[in-house]
Amino acid sequence: MIVGKVVGSIVSTRKNENLIGSKFMVVEPLSELGDATNKIVAIDNVGAGIGEIVLVATGSAARIGCNMTDSPVDAAIVGIVDSGIGLAGVMDHDPR
Amino acid sequence: MIVGKVVGSIVSTRKNENLIGSKFMVVEPLSELGDATNKIVAIDNVGAGIGEIVLVATGSAARIGCNMTDSPVDAAIVGIVDSGIGLAGVMDHDPR
Amino acid sequence: MIVGKVVGSIVSTRKNENLIGSKFMVVEPLSELGDATNKIVAIDNVGAGIGEIVLVATGSAARIGCNMTDSPVDAAIVGIVDSGIGLAGVMDHDPR
Amino acid sequence: MIVGKVVGSIVSTRKNENLIGSKFMVVEPLSELGDATNKIVAIDNVGAGIGEIVLVATGSAARIGCNMTDSPVDAAIVGIVDSGIGLAGVMDHDPR
Amino acid sequence: MIVGKVVGSIVSTRKNENLIGSKFMVVEPLSELGDATNKIVAIDNVGAGIGEIVLVATGSAARIGCNMTDSPVDAAIVGIVDSGIGLAGVMDHDPR
Repeated sequence: MIVGKVVGSIVSTRKNENLIGSKFMVVEPLSELGDATNKIVAIDNVGAGIGEIVLVATGSAARIGCNMTDSPVDAAIVGIVDSGIGLAGVMDHDPR
Repeated sequence: MIVGKVVGSIVSTRKNENLIGSKFMVVEPLSELGDATNKIVAIDNVGAGIGEIVLVATGSAARIGCNMTDSPVDAAIVGIVDSGIGLAGVMDHDPR
Repeated sequence: MIVGKVVGSIVSTRKNENLIGSKFMVVEPLSELGDATNKIVAIDNVGAGIGEIVLVATGSAARIGCNMTDSPVDAAIVGIVDSGIGLAGVMDHDPR
Repeated sequence: MIVGKVVGSIVSTRKNENLIGSKFMVVEPLSELGDATNKIVAIDNVGAGIGEIVLVATGSAARIGCNMTDSPVDAAIVGIVDSGIGLAGVMDHDPR
Repeated sequence: MIVGKVVGSIVSTRKNENLIGSKFMVVEPLSELGDATNKIVAIDNVGAGIGEIVLVATGSAARIGCNMTDSPVDAAIVGIVDSGIGLAGVMDHDPR
């Protein structure tokens, strides 16, 4: 999984019917897990807000693990990160 | 998922029979979600036009979420992006 | 999907039994879809020849979409590209 | 699979219910298998500790191979590496 | 699929039970298919030896195509490459 910060969201009115009701958040991976050009858009599965540090699952895990088996979803926010060690400068302190 | 701009399309006459009737669009990821060398070709699932900003699902999500379970499709346009925040310079304004 | 040029092929005699009869082609992605170091080897599903511009599906789509569900295949040529727009310098003209 | 070193862990209280009870470890790939910006977060399936060199499976393999078929997990630690050859400077000696 | 050279192997005693009996080989992609920092660890499905040029399948193809459906395997050596064209400097000659 990836750890990143929720930095935004997008709105899409005309979309695949299996996506109706989904919230699309923009997540920027922490610098140790990616670089500035690889923000991703993920479905919110846990009620994450902008500015929170979150855990993102990608691939089939996003669909199947979030009860969206038939939806075109390849990334989902599956946890809010409370604290951590080993991700220098960010995770040693309260990440929110 | 990836957010990108539809910049073109391709035509393929001789192809896998499960692809007959599909439209193949060329999508350039926004600069914050990729770089200039990673355009992708995606099936159009929502009627996107050239110049529109779209949401693209990749991997098995593209097949299964778009009712193309048996097709060799690994990327699909699944939404037209109306607006958004957090993708600087592009999404703050009407992206179309 | 990726668009690339067929630039070669490989021969493998000792291989997984589910690969017997498969043709392995070397595909170089167009410069807008990759870089010089990411050629891939793909099963040929449509009778592509060296020099042709092709559409390649990757991941589970390659297996499932090409009736090779039980084969260790993660990339397949699924179309010959006739023409296109939006891939500068290559696709505006006859790509073959 | 990827070989990396366990360098930390994260704590998430508010998370997908299928992740309850899971341990989330931060793994830094060995320099020959990645670069400094691609640490990943993996579920621990074998009781790995910080500082140990581990084998990480990614994608659907992480879910299905670890009896977490319905969980949003895309990376799992599936082995502790005892020794090895061919990964210069690290694996020729006891990797722990 | 990727073509690479077997450059080593690793030993793991404490591991997921579905991996018992598996051989873990270190594969370095040919320079045209990757770069120096992306060696991968793959299960050996065909009896490959160190120094041989091999074909590697990744993702779900590695599990399903090698009769290891329930194992946490995301890469497998599925063929020994005998010869080839189109991979300059390596494949034009006997690759072993």
